[in-house]
Amino acid sequence: MSAPHILCVGAATFDTLFKVPAIPATPTKVLPTACLQLAGGMAASGGAAIVRLGGRVEYWARVGDDATGRATIADLAAAGLELSRIRLVPGGRSTVCTILVDDAGGRMVVPYYDPQLDPDPGWLPVERIPQFDALLVDARWPAGAARALGAARDCGRIAVLDADVSPPGVLEELAPLASHVVFSEPALQSFAGAGPIEEALHAAATRLPGFVGVTLGAAGFSWLERGAIRHAPAPEVQAVDTLSAGDVFHGAFTLALAEGADPATAGRFANAAAALKCTRFGGRAGAPTRAEVEAFLRTSAA
Amino acid sequence: MSAPHILCVGAATFDTLFKVPAIPATPTKVLPTACLQLAGGMAASGGAAIVRLGGRVEYWARVGDDATGRATIADLAAAGLELSRIRLVPGGRSTVCTILVDDAGGRMVVPYYDPQLDPDPGWLPVERIPQFDALLVDARWPAGAARALGAARDCGRIAVLDADVSPPGVLEELAPLASHVVFSEPALQSFAGAGPIEEALHAAATRLPGFVGVTLGAAGFSWLERGAIRHAPAPEVQAVDTLSAGDVFHGAFTLALAEGADPATAGRFANAAAALKCTRFGGRAGAPTRAEVEAFLRTSAA
Repeated sequence: MSAPHILCVGAATFDTLFKVPAIPATPTKVLPTACLQLAGGMAASGGAAIVRLGGRVEYWARVGDDATGRATIADLAAAGLELSRIRLVPGGRSTVCTILVDDAGGRMVVPYYDPQLDPDPGWLPVERIPQFDALLVDARWPAGAARALGAARDCGRIAVLDADVSPPGVLEELAPLASHVVFSEPALQSFAGAGPIEEALHAAATRLPGFVGVTLGAAGFSWLERGAIRHAPAPEVQAVDTLSAGDVFHGAFTLALAEGADPATAGRFANAAAALKCTRFGGRAGAPTRAEVEAFLRTSAA
Repeated sequence: MSAPHILCVGAATFDTLFKVPAIPATPTKVLPTACLQLAGGMAASGGAAIVRLGGRVEYWARVGDDATGRATIADLAAAGLELSRIRLVPGGRSTVCTILVDDAGGRMVVPYYDPQLDPDPGWLPVERIPQFDALLVDARWPAGAARALGAARDCGRIAVLDADVSPPGVLEELAPLASHVVFSEPALQSFAGAGPIEEALHAAATRLPGFVGVTLGAAGFSWLERGAIRHAPAPEVQAVDTLSAGDVFHGAFTLALAEGADPATAGRFANAAAALKCTRFGGRAGAPTRAEVEAFLRTSAA
């Protein structure tokens, strides 16, 4: 079987990660002990994780026609993504994001999205979507995600929405278009009510046509299957950097679904990939290889 | 009289400024309302301020031989600095710095200096220092600053040290080499004792051969003249961004000295330039022109 070919669509960012002993509670100067610059964005980082795990990935996104945009493309190309369909928007500014990661794994994220960066997704070559085995989108470029999800639905492709906390209305528009919606915990509660996770999953499912799940950080992954709650605990690890762990989960989950795995198997695989990522500093640069995940699954109790 | 030609020597940085409503006390996501990327560093920003004020500036520094280093050079060239003697260090990484500025003017600064960036200042063409009218150095590249200050002292040039808080020993090494040491308030107290400013100025002067002054933010500028404390109050302004205000002060002060001003006149001029900078977001990009400072001085009570 050839490697699945996954399409990722989202908002690209150029990230500066600083490792700091502690994130201060009052404004001051902070001296980082390490610094890393790399291109990201949720679906891009998910795509880079898929490449590490053996999949092939094409990435559709737009960046500003500036030095940061070109650095973003160069770095994602180095991560193995196919980028022939990325768009440099004339006059737009690329998204930059600074992230502080402290020694306790806490983080402060400061992303700047240019409000002038043309959101029109009309140029997306959605007629090519039937060529892919699955689609993974983030919610940070809603118009692009909606267009890609709609095209994937029309041809019956697996289409995973990485449903993180978003401005009002965004998840309401996107989630019904996806075959699989995997929420973050706060996004699920924002979408479906602040009660217990089980109730929120049931409430979300009544409004959505497809698969509904939620990532719970160190607690793992829960989802609904034939009306019942299922749960896959995450393996225990010593977390040093949880940045991009969610992206890695969504990438690994999408790849496993594209390979034909059932949700329980895909969830266990994605839990392991995300847990391994957390043991390494560097955001998505810490994502594991397929061999590392498989070795970890063989020895892990999870 | 032709415009003074000032040499600036220091550590160059590539800065990302985010304007945020408030800097959070606990790690979280922060959405900036504006973002600006520009090259800086204390002496570089001081030099850019000098150019705005009508001086000519050559800048000596080293950057990593990477995309950030090239962006640093391009942006400082756009600010009008002469950069033929900047050094791209093979294998070194350029310094990046993220700064959050909140609506109350508070700021969090996160600079990353590559410990591998070659500190050797042997390549600095110090035989050219007699050609300049004055020297301004920061303390972030101590070996470079020491070499330039020593050469300026040997030929009797005005040599201003922007003496901000530094690792132990750095100001102790550099300050005795400068003709003019202008401390920040915390740096003066670190150098000369945590008592009242007046006592600390006297204590510093007993250890230094030249001029000793201290910038006091909104309170202005104090210095010693023939054993007596002098003070120039800063004009009152509505501060929206104090970032680089100290750099602008040091640049304006150096330029005024090079033009032959006495310390009181130079201090008043520099106070006005720094105050105007504080009224505009954007770090050193908010530095005023000569005409703006002169108009402000005509109408200001200071």
